[in-house]
Amino acid sequence: MKETIMDKSIELFAEKGFKETSIQDIMDELHVTKGTFYYYFKSKEELLKDIHLQYIERLLENQKKIISDPSKTCQEKLFAIIYKLIQDIEKEGQRAKVFIREINHLSDQYLDIVLPKRDQFRENVQLLIEEGIKNGEFRTDLPPDIVSFGILGIANWSYFWFKPTGKVSDKRVAEIFYEMLIHGIQQNN
Amino acid sequence: MKETIMDKSIELFAEKGFKETSIQDIMDELHVTKGTFYYYFKSKEELLKDIHLQYIERLLENQKKIISDPSKTCQEKLFAIIYKLIQDIEKEGQRAKVFIREINHLSDQYLDIVLPKRDQFRENVQLLIEEGIKNGEFRTDLPPDIVSFGILGIANWSYFWFKPTGKVSDKRVAEIFYEMLIHGIQQNN
Repeated sequence: MKETIMDKSIELFAEKGFKETSIQDIMDELHVTKGTFYYYFKSKEELLKDIHLQYIERLLENQKKIISDPSKTCQEKLFAIIYKLIQDIEKEGQRAKVFIREINHLSDQYLDIVLPKRDQFRENVQLLIEEGIKNGEFRTDLPPDIVSFGILGIANWSYFWFKPTGKVSDKRVAEIFYEMLIHGIQQNN
Repeated sequence: MKETIMDKSIELFAEKGFKETSIQDIMDELHVTKGTFYYYFKSKEELLKDIHLQYIERLLENQKKIISDPSKTCQEKLFAIIYKLIQDIEKEGQRAKVFIREINHLSDQYLDIVLPKRDQFRENVQLLIEEGIKNGEFRTDLPPDIVSFGILGIANWSYFWFKPTGKVSDKRVAEIFYEMLIHGIQQNN
């Protein structure tokens, strides 16, 4: 039931917004009483925190799988992370929407739980860049922290424009972004 | 007065959110009556539309200045656009916040006015890439539309992490992003 409430809430939050959706709205859609809601969650804010936490923990898990794969180079891992982020917009569009758009509705006590995990995801990209600098895959003259923000920007911004039903596939977008990042857009004469 | 109401609203919307701020809240802060508000705006939604429109029109104006400068190469223009976007987060933090975060509170009639201008900004970047491809500055094997989304992603995402008070300046961030985009992060042996 907890999962069902979360899924329905994501749907409503993505469609109408967090503030605009009441607990009653969610329970009406599920044809259950408010008591059921309070059995699983203390408040709508706690529900939002759980949605955020579940989303970022899944992302971290997937990232860990990619990074710990000993058969991949750092460049291959970088591609896999970019691809996964763009794929997620396709597969988990509504979750991504709530995750990116509704973070400002989390109170400080919940932000303290969610933000360190968001930071962890970015820091893992930075560690990957640092490893690639050490092993000669990446340039030594660019600061790995800013580079990691740039990489996440290019991938995460897709949320604002990428249409899974459009003419370009998520894989193709990931390939183009990876190419831009790895070799740059300058024509080499 | 119109400008004063807009400035105060941006402050309150950025701090508390659009939905959470009432017209009464804005007018209380300015010590004027609601009648004054309705002299300038039909509704809170129209005010939000005007804020969006002003923001994107200024961005377009600045972009036009950069792009029409005959002394600059396409690469130099690209750097100038990235730099301007990151600078704007510093100078116009609250406006940027409202612009990025509160777009979903615009109704369709207002979206029809604002969205084409947002698209125009992105399309102008695409046109710049296309020009640079023609004159040999940029690679011919990357699609200019996706490249333009990537460039805007890398720059606009800064809104989510860049702190103007931090140890890295907006100019330095722009230089690093430009370097990544132009030459790529791969080590060339």
